[in-house]
Amino acid sequence: MAEKLYAIGVDLGGTKIEVGLIDHLGVLIEHTKVATDVKGGPAMIKTQILASIRSLPKDLDGPIVGIGVGVAGQVDSSSGLVVFAPNLDWHNVPLKQDLNRTLSLPIIVANDVRVATWGEWFYGAGKGCDDLVCLFIGTGIGGGVVSGGRMLTGRSNTFGELGHVTVDLRGNYCTCGNRGCLESIAGGWAIAKRAKEGVKRDAKVGQTLLKLAGGQVDNITGKVVIQGMRMGDPLSQLIIEQVVQALIGGCIGFVNAFNPSRLILGGGLIDGLPEAVIRIDKGIRQRALKAASSPLQVLPAALANKAGVIGAAALAMHTFKS
Amino acid sequence: MAEKLYAIGVDLGGTKIEVGLIDHLGVLIEHTKVATDVKGGPAMIKTQILASIRSLPKDLDGPIVGIGVGVAGQVDSSSGLVVFAPNLDWHNVPLKQDLNRTLSLPIIVANDVRVATWGEWFYGAGKGCDDLVCLFIGTGIGGGVVSGGRMLTGRSNTFGELGHVTVDLRGNYCTCGNRGCLESIAGGWAIAKRAKEGVKRDAKVGQTLLKLAGGQVDNITGKVVIQGMRMGDPLSQLIIEQVVQALIGGCIGFVNAFNPSRLILGGGLIDGLPEAVIRIDKGIRQRALKAASSPLQVLPAALANKAGVIGAAALAMHTFKS
Repeated sequence: MAEKLYAIGVDLGGTKIEVGLIDHLGVLIEHTKVATDVKGGPAMIKTQILASIRSLPKDLDGPIVGIGVGVAGQVDSSSGLVVFAPNLDWHNVPLKQDLNRTLSLPIIVANDVRVATWGEWFYGAGKGCDDLVCLFIGTGIGGGVVSGGRMLTGRSNTFGELGHVTVDLRGNYCTCGNRGCLESIAGGWAIAKRAKEGVKRDAKVGQTLLKLAGGQVDNITGKVVIQGMRMGDPLSQLIIEQVVQALIGGCIGFVNAFNPSRLILGGGLIDGLPEAVIRIDKGIRQRALKAASSPLQVLPAALANKAGVIGAAALAMHTFKS
Repeated sequence: MAEKLYAIGVDLGGTKIEVGLIDHLGVLIEHTKVATDVKGGPAMIKTQILASIRSLPKDLDGPIVGIGVGVAGQVDSSSGLVVFAPNLDWHNVPLKQDLNRTLSLPIIVANDVRVATWGEWFYGAGKGCDDLVCLFIGTGIGGGVVSGGRMLTGRSNTFGELGHVTVDLRGNYCTCGNRGCLESIAGGWAIAKRAKEGVKRDAKVGQTLLKLAGGQVDNITGKVVIQGMRMGDPLSQLIIEQVVQALIGGCIGFVNAFNPSRLILGGGLIDGLPEAVIRIDKGIRQRALKAASSPLQVLPAALANKAGVIGAAALAMHTFKS
């Protein structure tokens, strides 16, 4: 019988730090969450991570193989350097090196979307699959791609920036500087922006959304727009329809380009709008190349809000188990 | 000193069959070309291929490791079955099996675009590079992707259908059934279609193009439109500008999604419009994610019209040399 193995996952975000222990089957044994002390800076956050790790159970029937850390930002995985993490206000923080001063376990640091893809691949909707595309649609949009049984990283470790593919040549500018990115239509920030503009343009058209936002335009979020859509508000319905059409068009491109056997859709938008998965699936069947789409399944992500912590542990499990 | 090795490449197209012999450095030693006898069917074409192979020099200072065949169409590389090749009017032709009855050398059959990517990777503009995207823009648009030192194939061997990514959600329908594909704007057939529509819509606007096409609307091709553009014809200039903008938008998406260290651009359109490479490069520098584009070089393909035959031989060299 194979030995029991464990791994620790750390999901480091701008609002919370989640730390968990998984076993070799990906079961989350123990799990802690603390508010991120962003103002305390890297030293304070490092202390928070260490305290969370120390609180995990020690009496296990097998070894902990290592620690994986997922960070929302640009990471150099080979050195464990966090190049830039806007939500933490970090520039060039040598996180792995810092943690290694105190911890004897091997550590790997990666981008949060990449880590969530590891989680879905090993223990979620991508289990047992050699060719998958994960698309996470939240405030921003990011992706991860496994092809031929390998996680693709690209030349400078940014493979899978699927929110920033051009889907609308004549579209609005995105925050990234390109025009008509998928994220500039279907990202949470873009949904909120478009809704706010609609409300400001015409008070009558915007009355439902404004009411849902407690009378404050600035309180309109993607979630509020989905709520408006469910209540039959025409402005919300129009915006969400454009979001779904952009996701269908974008995903057809991903299926044709990457030829995956599974397309896994997750993130806040999909949690709030699960019917989008069915519509994207249908759009792909109608309009993607048959040779590319025939082996395809379109599935919702399985790990939900635990993708970060399970994914980080999954990455450690994959990297360090001998 | 390493032994000298040779490989045979076959480029099987609807108008011609090219067969060549390369050495282990990718140098094309010998090369033959015959018109494809499409009407003769698979048996006749097989005979043509065998005759071309037999005409190659036999007195070599090293072994021939195998034969690679590139076919414009959908190929099952594992079995060597040509599933569908529209220009040959072939459905489910077991090409590898057929050739193996006569030839004792190992044979591999692959799609022509994939084969051209092998050629550029091994002996062309992608030499020595582990992460590259090849985009071939001719009548249609196809691509090949190498990532982490491996040619990506996808679940059903269609990875890299880069002509069929959505770049214009509100665009025209493509021949594939999707809307606003890159190919539906920048493919040769789409350029010709748009030009013909323009000429038919307004005789005055279309007069230059019509003249260049010898007075026959149906003779307008992508090449004719490029010629019109060079002569300062406003309709041609407009169409080509839209082509360049679509290629810039599409390539920004490829750089962000695939994070290659080289983007290699080839095919008839690039041969006729080499300045597009510079404009695409500039557009990427301005609008792609810095983290993705900083390691990038944008280059024209190096093997030109020999990509098919050299690429097929390169694939055989890679597959069969021990």
